[in-house]
Amino acid sequence: MKIHLLLIGTELLQGKIIDAQTHWFGQFLTERSLKLESVHIISDSPSLILETMKKLSTTDRLVISGGLGPTLDDLTKKILADFLQVPLHFSPQAKTIVEGNYSRQNRPAPPLEHGYYFLPKNVLALNNPTGFAPGLRSSSSQGEIICLPGVPHEFQSIIKENADELFPKSSTLFKLLNFRTQGIPEEKIFTELCPTLWQDLEKWGEVVSLPHVMAVDVGVKISAQNKSELEQKEQECTDFILSSPLKKYLWHIGQESLEKVIIDEARKRNLKIAFAESCTGGLNTHRLTNIAGSSDVLWGGIVSYANDFKIQFLDVKPELLTSFGAVSSECAKAMAQNLRLKSNVDFVLSTTGIAGPGGGSEQKPVGTVWIGLSSKKETIANHFHLKGNRELLKLRFSQAGLFMLLKKIIEI
Amino acid sequence: MKIHLLLIGTELLQGKIIDAQTHWFGQFLTERSLKLESVHIISDSPSLILETMKKLSTTDRLVISGGLGPTLDDLTKKILADFLQVPLHFSPQAKTIVEGNYSRQNRPAPPLEHGYYFLPKNVLALNNPTGFAPGLRSSSSQGEIICLPGVPHEFQSIIKENADELFPKSSTLFKLLNFRTQGIPEEKIFTELCPTLWQDLEKWGEVVSLPHVMAVDVGVKISAQNKSELEQKEQECTDFILSSPLKKYLWHIGQESLEKVIIDEARKRNLKIAFAESCTGGLNTHRLTNIAGSSDVLWGGIVSYANDFKIQFLDVKPELLTSFGAVSSECAKAMAQNLRLKSNVDFVLSTTGIAGPGGGSEQKPVGTVWIGLSSKKETIANHFHLKGNRELLKLRFSQAGLFMLLKKIIEI
Repeated sequence: MKIHLLLIGTELLQGKIIDAQTHWFGQFLTERSLKLESVHIISDSPSLILETMKKLSTTDRLVISGGLGPTLDDLTKKILADFLQVPLHFSPQAKTIVEGNYSRQNRPAPPLEHGYYFLPKNVLALNNPTGFAPGLRSSSSQGEIICLPGVPHEFQSIIKENADELFPKSSTLFKLLNFRTQGIPEEKIFTELCPTLWQDLEKWGEVVSLPHVMAVDVGVKISAQNKSELEQKEQECTDFILSSPLKKYLWHIGQESLEKVIIDEARKRNLKIAFAESCTGGLNTHRLTNIAGSSDVLWGGIVSYANDFKIQFLDVKPELLTSFGAVSSECAKAMAQNLRLKSNVDFVLSTTGIAGPGGGSEQKPVGTVWIGLSSKKETIANHFHLKGNRELLKLRFSQAGLFMLLKKIIEI
Repeated sequence: MKIHLLLIGTELLQGKIIDAQTHWFGQFLTERSLKLESVHIISDSPSLILETMKKLSTTDRLVISGGLGPTLDDLTKKILADFLQVPLHFSPQAKTIVEGNYSRQNRPAPPLEHGYYFLPKNVLALNNPTGFAPGLRSSSSQGEIICLPGVPHEFQSIIKENADELFPKSSTLFKLLNFRTQGIPEEKIFTELCPTLWQDLEKWGEVVSLPHVMAVDVGVKISAQNKSELEQKEQECTDFILSSPLKKYLWHIGQESLEKVIIDEARKRNLKIAFAESCTGGLNTHRLTNIAGSSDVLWGGIVSYANDFKIQFLDVKPELLTSFGAVSSECAKAMAQNLRLKSNVDFVLSTTGIAGPGGGSEQKPVGTVWIGLSSKKETIANHFHLKGNRELLKLRFSQAGLFMLLKKIIEI
């Protein structure tokens, strides 16, 4: 099944908002063993929308996002009617859906002349479980077109409610086998470490390599006609990786995030964690608390941004700050160890560095970070010199620290 | 100037990674009064890339992202050569750039047969200040094509370094006048509050309305032939909004984020801020520390995720937790007030609530939050019942709290 996504939204092209549809829809289709062929983002111009609709409609499914709301720039419905060469007419089916949506929010339904009740002829209304405007489904000789609101949770809930009908699962089984590595640049993996890795893996399927912040995923897309064939390919390919030099850099096989893997591994071992953050500014604690059930593992965090805060809440000695500075091995260790002793958790990870743009010096340029890790066994500190703007540096500091933490958790 | 962006990346379509180019490039062009016409995302298939290149190249600038790296699926350069019907050949200019990039990272340059040194004939190499692979610039009768690496910071740094040459600023002046509001839903603004607002604003330019998390931006795109005309339109339109009922909901005119406005307004008044976070898990502190210079204002934060942490670091009384629960007005107030007294800052904002998916009850369902705010003058707490999944709820809790904080800062 060929599926294309058309996003209507000048705001996306102006960089005012970030496209939330592609990522979610791509994941949704991948889970159903379906493939998103292409995505197109265009502005709110009626003639351009009509023209693009014509080009893309000769496919199995064209999904259009945006332009179904109540404001004057919401034009999708009218353009679909032009495309199908049918009039907009009152749809009792749309009326039932809209009335239900308003009553769910304890609000009176809009008057009978409201645009929500009018659809192009022969077009079906799709229920919108989290908003007001119905989605549209047009099945005609000009292809199958599905129009959905641009608000991400509405877009998603309409698709989920109609998933089996609109996007039936593929009979060919697909799986992306994903080998997540850390500590080696992409280029080195395929040249120095395993020069024939790419060709070797192609035996099982298409190979992809994807650098992330301080990490590289090596993926193999395997496909099969039945479950046992899929499982066999998966086993063979995994065994191959586990006997290759790449094994040493692997931190996860699958699609889970670093924070999820940390929570899962710590929970298995009944470990408690806390953070003492300076330059990451709360990002480590924020990332771990994004995971449902993180309260089993994460006790809390102290973001000691000002030196006074380090002294008062983390018992860092003023003399230490005077002698070594806040960005030092000594300070990172003190932050981690003192918080561990106070909170009685198993691990405390600390970060102190310079995220910029100001605050750097010749000895300690922007991008310098000391990361401390304290457990009952030991208190250590590592330092890194990283590159990037402020937000990227915060993320890199965070990645470097969380990888240190995961390594120590797994050793236990 | 017509500018189109083509993203090559199966990973984007599979939902493995999020497109970072469109948002940044859209903002970059908007700041130069230029317009991004469209964005297209396609998979790594050579025939499809070639076909799309042909379709889009008849424009002023086609920017292609992805496929310039060192791995076998990096095919853009070869396809560009096919498209131009020229061979790949050794480029001394590319060699100079690549050698410089390796020496900047203290690494030896790759051997002479390395792919980085070979470009399609008549194509220029563009320096890559943050990576290894050079960008490409092809100016021919088939249009102007610019190929850049898919890694976001490399994509951005190449464009920034060549901005004036590749994307000269437009002579027509554009400005998006942006009125940021909070506390009123989009639909109500244009129906109940100011029924003729849309038409009224169209006098000055195209109107856009954009809902954000717990906020709505109303924008007017004004254009002019010279600076004084632009300033006059800006003044008139702003005066109109400031004398309309929308004024009461305005929190900022411009493009700044909520966190930036908080830092700026607090700095003006020489105020210090700290956070006591439970359900937002560090997000408030993380958001404020994303702003350069936030250390002038932000002292730090305590993320007291576990009750023990609330007792130990925020002096919340165990009896209070037993009587009222952690998600209560009493707890929110105690968290905020105790941290303010301990840290001696001017404002502490606290959050305690249920981000789910577990932990809800009939009395306190998922989405319940108490937000406390303590200053020398008073300690208050407000509660909200919000909707969404875990990450969205954290963001909504954070927005609700930061808007409370901004309001109090401005009152001083």
